Amino acid sequence: LLPALRGHAAGTSSYNGLALTPAMGWDNWNAFGCKVSEELILTTAQKIVELGLRDLGYYYIILDDCWSSGRTSNGTLQANSTKFPDGIPAVAEKIHGMGLGWGMYSSAGKYTCAQYAASLGVEKQDAQTFADWGVDYLKYDNCYNEGQEGTALVTYNRYKAMSDALNATGRPILYSMCNWGQDSPWDWAQTIANSWRMSGDVYDSFDRPDSRCPCDTYECSLPGFHCSVMNILNKAAPILNKAQPGAWNDLDMLEVGNSGMTDDEYKTHFSMWALAKSPLIMGTDVTMMIAETLSIYSNPAIIAINQDPLGVPVTRVWQSPAQPQNETYSVDAYTAGETSFWTGELMNGDYVVAFVNGGPKATTLTATMNDVFIDLVTTGSNAPVPQLQQTYDVYDLWANRMSNTTAQAIINGNFTMETNSTNTTSEASANSTLPMQTYNATQLSYADGLNANNAALFGIKVKTMAPMGTLSTTVPSHGVAVYRLRSQGGGSGMRKRDEL
Amino acid sequence: LLPALRGHAAGTSSYNGLALTPAMGWDNWNAFGCKVSEELILTTAQKIVELGLRDLGYYYIILDDCWSSGRTSNGTLQANSTKFPDGIPAVAEKIHGMGLGWGMYSSAGKYTCAQYAASLGVEKQDAQTFADWGVDYLKYDNCYNEGQEGTALVTYNRYKAMSDALNATGRPILYSMCNWGQDSPWDWAQTIANSWRMSGDVYDSFDRPDSRCPCDTYECSLPGFHCSVMNILNKAAPILNKAQPGAWNDLDMLEVGNSGMTDDEYKTHFSMWALAKSPLIMGTDVTMMIAETLSIYSNPAIIAINQDPLGVPVTRVWQSPAQPQNETYSVDAYTAGETSFWTGELMNGDYVVAFVNGGPKATTLTATMNDVFIDLVTTGSNAPVPQLQQTYDVYDLWANRMSNTTAQAIINGNFTMETNSTNTTSEASANSTLPMQTYNATQLSYADGLNANNAALFGIKVKTMAPMGTLSTTVPSHGVAVYRLRSQGGGSGMRKRDEL
Amino acid sequence: LLPALRGHAAGTSSYNGLALTPAMGWDNWNAFGCKVSEELILTTAQKIVELGLRDLGYYYIILDDCWSSGRTSNGTLQANSTKFPDGIPAVAEKIHGMGLGWGMYSSAGKYTCAQYAASLGVEKQDAQTFADWGVDYLKYDNCYNEGQEGTALVTYNRYKAMSDALNATGRPILYSMCNWGQDSPWDWAQTIANSWRMSGDVYDSFDRPDSRCPCDTYECSLPGFHCSVMNILNKAAPILNKAQPGAWNDLDMLEVGNSGMTDDEYKTHFSMWALAKSPLIMGTDVTMMIAETLSIYSNPAIIAINQDPLGVPVTRVWQSPAQPQNETYSVDAYTAGETSFWTGELMNGDYVVAFVNGGPKATTLTATMNDVFIDLVTTGSNAPVPQLQQTYDVYDLWANRMSNTTAQAIINGNFTMETNSTNTTSEASANSTLPMQTYNATQLSYADGLNANNAALFGIKVKTMAPMGTLSTTVPSHGVAVYRLRSQGGGSGMRKRDEL
Amino acid sequence: LLPALRGHAAGTSSYNGLALTPAMGWDNWNAFGCKVSEELILTTAQKIVELGLRDLGYYYIILDDCWSSGRTSNGTLQANSTKFPDGIPAVAEKIHGMGLGWGMYSSAGKYTCAQYAASLGVEKQDAQTFADWGVDYLKYDNCYNEGQEGTALVTYNRYKAMSDALNATGRPILYSMCNWGQDSPWDWAQTIANSWRMSGDVYDSFDRPDSRCPCDTYECSLPGFHCSVMNILNKAAPILNKAQPGAWNDLDMLEVGNSGMTDDEYKTHFSMWALAKSPLIMGTDVTMMIAETLSIYSNPAIIAINQDPLGVPVTRVWQSPAQPQNETYSVDAYTAGETSFWTGELMNGDYVVAFVNGGPKATTLTATMNDVFIDLVTTGSNAPVPQLQQTYDVYDLWANRMSNTTAQAIINGNFTMETNSTNTTSEASANSTLPMQTYNATQLSYADGLNANNAALFGIKVKTMAPMGTLSTTVPSHGVAVYRLRSQGGGSGMRKRDEL
Repeated sequence: LLPALRGHAAGTSSYNGLALTPAMGWDNWNAFGCKVSEELILTTAQKIVELGLRDLGYYYIILDDCWSSGRTSNGTLQANSTKFPDGIPAVAEKIHGMGLGWGMYSSAGKYTCAQYAASLGVEKQDAQTFADWGVDYLKYDNCYNEGQEGTALVTYNRYKAMSDALNATGRPILYSMCNWGQDSPWDWAQTIANSWRMSGDVYDSFDRPDSRCPCDTYECSLPGFHCSVMNILNKAAPILNKAQPGAWNDLDMLEVGNSGMTDDEYKTHFSMWALAKSPLIMGTDVTMMIAETLSIYSNPAIIAINQDPLGVPVTRVWQSPAQPQNETYSVDAYTAGETSFWTGELMNGDYVVAFVNGGPKATTLTATMNDVFIDLVTTGSNAPVPQLQQTYDVYDLWANRMSNTTAQAIINGNFTMETNSTNTTSEASANSTLPMQTYNATQLSYADGLNANNAALFGIKVKTMAPMGTLSTTVPSHGVAVYRLRSQGGGSGMRKRDEL
Repeated sequence: LLPALRGHAAGTSSYNGLALTPAMGWDNWNAFGCKVSEELILTTAQKIVELGLRDLGYYYIILDDCWSSGRTSNGTLQANSTKFPDGIPAVAEKIHGMGLGWGMYSSAGKYTCAQYAASLGVEKQDAQTFADWGVDYLKYDNCYNEGQEGTALVTYNRYKAMSDALNATGRPILYSMCNWGQDSPWDWAQTIANSWRMSGDVYDSFDRPDSRCPCDTYECSLPGFHCSVMNILNKAAPILNKAQPGAWNDLDMLEVGNSGMTDDEYKTHFSMWALAKSPLIMGTDVTMMIAETLSIYSNPAIIAINQDPLGVPVTRVWQSPAQPQNETYSVDAYTAGETSFWTGELMNGDYVVAFVNGGPKATTLTATMNDVFIDLVTTGSNAPVPQLQQTYDVYDLWANRMSNTTAQAIINGNFTMETNSTNTTSEASANSTLPMQTYNATQLSYADGLNANNAALFGIKVKTMAPMGTLSTTVPSHGVAVYRLRSQGGGSGMRKRDEL
Repeated sequence: LLPALRGHAAGTSSYNGLALTPAMGWDNWNAFGCKVSEELILTTAQKIVELGLRDLGYYYIILDDCWSSGRTSNGTLQANSTKFPDGIPAVAEKIHGMGLGWGMYSSAGKYTCAQYAASLGVEKQDAQTFADWGVDYLKYDNCYNEGQEGTALVTYNRYKAMSDALNATGRPILYSMCNWGQDSPWDWAQTIANSWRMSGDVYDSFDRPDSRCPCDTYECSLPGFHCSVMNILNKAAPILNKAQPGAWNDLDMLEVGNSGMTDDEYKTHFSMWALAKSPLIMGTDVTMMIAETLSIYSNPAIIAINQDPLGVPVTRVWQSPAQPQNETYSVDAYTAGETSFWTGELMNGDYVVAFVNGGPKATTLTATMNDVFIDLVTTGSNAPVPQLQQTYDVYDLWANRMSNTTAQAIINGNFTMETNSTNTTSEASANSTLPMQTYNATQLSYADGLNANNAALFGIKVKTMAPMGTLSTTVPSHGVAVYRLRSQGGGSGMRKRDEL
Repeated sequence: LLPALRGHAAGTSSYNGLALTPAMGWDNWNAFGCKVSEELILTTAQKIVELGLRDLGYYYIILDDCWSSGRTSNGTLQANSTKFPDGIPAVAEKIHGMGLGWGMYSSAGKYTCAQYAASLGVEKQDAQTFADWGVDYLKYDNCYNEGQEGTALVTYNRYKAMSDALNATGRPILYSMCNWGQDSPWDWAQTIANSWRMSGDVYDSFDRPDSRCPCDTYECSLPGFHCSVMNILNKAAPILNKAQPGAWNDLDMLEVGNSGMTDDEYKTHFSMWALAKSPLIMGTDVTMMIAETLSIYSNPAIIAINQDPLGVPVTRVWQSPAQPQNETYSVDAYTAGETSFWTGELMNGDYVVAFVNGGPKATTLTATMNDVFIDLVTTGSNAPVPQLQQTYDVYDLWANRMSNTTAQAIINGNFTMETNSTNTTSEASANSTLPMQTYNATQLSYADGLNANNAALFGIKVKTMAPMGTLSTTVPSHGVAVYRLRSQGGGSGMRKRDEL
């Protein structure tokens, strides 16, 4: 018996009450590595507010590795005073003052990955320090773990020590495990953490194989790093369903905007992370963001999938045969040629579906209603599946992407509603000063916006899908098509299998 | 030295005396998931009696996950009073009153798979509660196990704690381990449990690959769910022989009747589960059972294989090369194209053989006597194999399947012996009010019925197989042919290798 | 640094002083399974003496599983008094009286594989019982191990407990671990045991794949049983070098004579087990032995390889590409098509080489001197390899196989020296009453016989191999060719790399 | 988060302050095995000095296995007095007197691999003995480990015991773990050791597969021995980046000079070990060294890569598809046909790149600037990569290889500067008595020599590479091309990503 149908469980859905939807925010590592400073953090946070990203839900500002200068004489962690002249508490206070959450980093090892002081064996003291400093989010890494790996129990105990320590502080701190999928965290981390990394580190490539990320599947004793978007997505497919509200698979921070991929590739990356219910942590220099980057990060129709209160990750329904991923270097070097179709349930009986084209050419892909509702069709009941008898409105969730003009205006700080005045009716409260393609989730939550049929969350309706019909679309090379399906019969009257 | 020839061991054959043949019964999960209630249980139990399924041996009524509302102030498990207004003991009493056994569910974890209260760390208290409530069967799951997995000893200890606790209550409770084959339970569970799941969860598909059931073999760190019938059967083949009376491989509950497979596919599913000596736990809504479903569940000739007192699972003698099981979506998408032949010894020197056709077309398959008696031929003795010199009567165990008319009459509650009056002679005591195609094992055990040559247990004799002859038959796509072989020389005079 | 060159180590070469060459003997399991009795044991032992097998070195008579009736009230193991009316000590005494060693069986589990009383947790008491009973050899199995498997340390500790217990008795008892290669015994068993099984159980087939022996390599979590000769040989190749005097890879008991293979297949089986330095434990009914069987078991030229005092297993130098071992059933169903060449060093600078033809047709195979001396050629020294510059006499070790007439005369008990009188000169002391094709190692050890150039140990000289020459021969399907190479320059003057 | 960018970490870069660059030296095992003696050691050390190898950096003289005669009555290790009549301390003193370091050997087991006394369980006593004897380097092997393997923690603890014991002596002793890559030492050994073997033992073959080295990847439960250069290099590729100053992957001792490979193969072997930042431990008989061997070991331009203070191993950027490495024996038997390109950062913004041709024919290979700077291109930043816009001077690091005439003169002891007088200007202080193709690192460290643009460290400038240009060269079969790239813009003005 597996947790496939646990949607309506009586137990608590988050061990510490946090992350009922996946975390959103920004982390400096992908773009800046060890080059951290108070200035970087505060400048970035300010920009995140100005660009409307905070209001879209990017809440946590996470200071990654390299912030430390070791410990004081009594063993308390201390920040590097050159990088953080005002000290961490002052930074945290300013972050909080901007309406953002404050995230920090340590490792379940002797050192952090960059060889700074880390927390293995001193979890209680460090957790208290983080709490005292106003930390709201802890990323907890896996380097220099002193051989405490290789079986689930050893790893569980190592990460549970910090989980317990954080809980003991009394401060709500989102706990983000970063053990790269070693020892099957998807089997056991739901009761001690809010998310767990499930692979080696992502890098800024769509599908280039790299010797340092040697595994092709979730079963991997050497997670490595330099893992491509497609590598991680394929590793994630079999374990996506292990997530639940409060406990998510973390596919690693986003590379959108870092210039190593095409716009289509970044759309695929962003879309599939969102549909997988991965935390959405921006990993680019937001102060230098270009229009295309902003309009990807700012697509509320996609974010609404990620933040859907049902909290059900998509399932990969089918996948074309991949060509062997050898490391040959050729013109179209890294294209594994695979296409795939994904589906997942949303609140109010809606469904999200996605076609991914990993191949070198634009391709027309088709899915049937049986594909869309595969879990209902095969669910082990002789009851009929009413969804197959309904007509669905199909919303293209990228069709309403913010224009470059609008995005650039936001970046330039000179966007005004005059630029786009059609938005006043349906989104008055949430979006009064925003273009219709963006959204303010601090005023109207995604759940409430969905219930209110806020247009920004639905892209553009592009077709209908008849009972037992098919859905067909041409997807560009390395691109994605993402649709939201709504029954014309609306959210009521549909069979809810787990209704109690 | 492996337990191949341990049939005549002096030791006890069941650690707790139970399940000398595989358990039979019904569990609500496959058809109802979390939608459990007193009414569902009692209505179903009543129907199981009325349809003659109880008398065929389906004894345990198993209430799966989602029955709980947590614990009382002193930590005792308590049922959800909305779902079970009269309380569990009252339900158990009624079940017992119908001549059925009462099964319940918990997990060797912090929560059940649906996140209800579970028993890890409180095994003694919960076992006593189950005993106090009149429980006869415990299904014990694997979710939220707090990292206590990954090596055999850790898993063994976790499951042994409940085994010991159940034993300590003094009440005989069949113990059904549900750890999905993790950490090789077939190596060590025989001394602590009556069965162990050996794969991820089955779903209602004959052979569709699913991303969430990623393994193709028994060696699997991610058992997953949505495993097809053929996926599980192939995983089971190398470990079937690890079973022994009192300790069985559990291939998971039956999907027969849930509408996701064809009639041939369900026959294959039911037959191979039976021959594998898996528990036969119905997983459909019996109150809505159609005639075809009833006539599969009610085939006593197949059930008699499952319940054969010798307790020897079949062996896969050969298997055609399977086509690669990639996840391509095409017209005949999931056919792996494999055919296979299986054989197993029964009481009185009989043998059961089965041809399985997993391919897309009907195929004629042939086996030799060397195939049938492969273990005698290769057993490491220079003594002759008398079986090869005998003529066998070949009984087709599906040829006497109950007609839809009869089955529908039973479902309608208007079956009378007049419908089928040819049955009075040989089966007088067992089947006085039943059609000849069914059986009442509560009046005449399968072992006794076999000894008495009860016709219902032998299907229809269709041919003979000469010494060193072959057996050949055309098997429909996704279908099965199952035969019982009886030496014309009868049950005596045959070499019994392990005779002491 | 691996033990490749440890031939001249100063440490003890056997942890308990026993098995400086691989054990030889007879075990009842392969031919009789659980049908054991005092009569079987004594009759067999008597026959082993009469057939000259004892004198060839088959010393241990091993009573396998199923001898027990449990324990006495104080916990002492006791034999089944029906099977052993005179008791074990009396049998042991008679065995000893015949000049043979006495072997028994238990398991490092709760039960033996046939579910009799076993020794896990009561090692000391049982070891003392075995010592008291006059046991000289203990086979120690792996069934019902209560989850104490899956990591090397858990398994090591479980088997070490009996090793220590046997040592503590003060009686020299050869300790034969039977844990089927689980948890890499070749890495750690040398200091606690005299041999370790390295695979699942053999069965009487040359190369038929069987579902119950699912692994193709040494890395195997399900060793299983029904493993063919070729399956085991291929598993053994990478670990053969882990053996050393006193500690051997056990490829399992011999099936020679059990009628499931051809004469060529049995020759290959016997030869390769001998060259691999596996224990040579006969597994057939010696009272019904036919001439061909006796002449294989009695080939002293092959046995002399096995018992060579240098104790170096052969190495597989090359192997043809094997065809995929799927389980297709066809006319030449199980031929994997592989050919291979093996080489190993012997005392006095001799070498043994073997060609194996696993294919369906006779094939001419060729090896170069570089193949024969591959380890010298690649040994990491810029010194010249004098062996490449020498001429070798090539002895075919099967060319002098005992004739069926002679073997039958021995079986009939009417062999006299008149049958074969050419043997009197060189082997006077050893073979005065034996045909020249056999040998009495109790009078003249193999080492002494080799030093004395005893003709029975050298087969027939068939050719010479010139410096840098090649060796070429036609090998029948499923057959073997085994040669002993002697430098015409004799045993002196040759570079001995490890000379101290 | 992985340690990809930890170059500027604040933590200590070596747990014991040693091996900030990979160790260099000589070990007797590859060429002499157990044939060790005082004379061998001292003669070799003397020769190493005379040939200029000491001055090139080959500092440690390592006495491998077989030196012991067990322990004294109080348990102290003692040397074999026949082999070492003056005792170890006297040898160490002489070695130190020559300006060399003294290395010894033990095993984390009951015995050494050659079955001599070893240190498991007596680490403290043995570490003190080594310290008392003046040992500067300990090679610590893995044989006879009593089952203490199979999970990271068990192996970590076993090796940590000696690490702690060495530290406790107060003497700086380089600690060289030799556990053959078992249990992923690259994950955890950085805090307890200076290097760890990452594969089975090398042997004197470029690419011949051997049954005793059965694994093709880093994930390997049977490391074995007789691993070819290409086998080890391919295993190393995914883990090279796990090294850091003070903690290195050890690809095993060098076979250069042992006659089993061609000159091109030895150049490839030496180059790739150097670029991988493996310890460079000569494994040949230096007293019989031929000119070609000396000129490989003496190439300071390659050694300077190995000893580069940045301590960054190369990365394999691409690899051609390898042909299956089956063990077929044919004319060009072992060529897997793969080609590959490697790149790595050096001090001052230089880069080293290498093309390897594992195929049977000379091949022209090409890399782009994107290949060279792959990590900058994909590093997850939208900042431009200035390296792509620069012109690089390309130095062929083998083009200035010492001539055979010069090498022979050195071997003959009659080299004088007259032989090669062009060297006086740029290398006055370091190389006043040396040919320009060699180097004295004891006078001018590699780091200082690089900063001073010492010509011996740069090979010969052969071309330039324009912005966004390509690098193309024809590489002989089994050969290598190694280039050092220097920006014409020099070491300044370039973006340093990790600058703090």
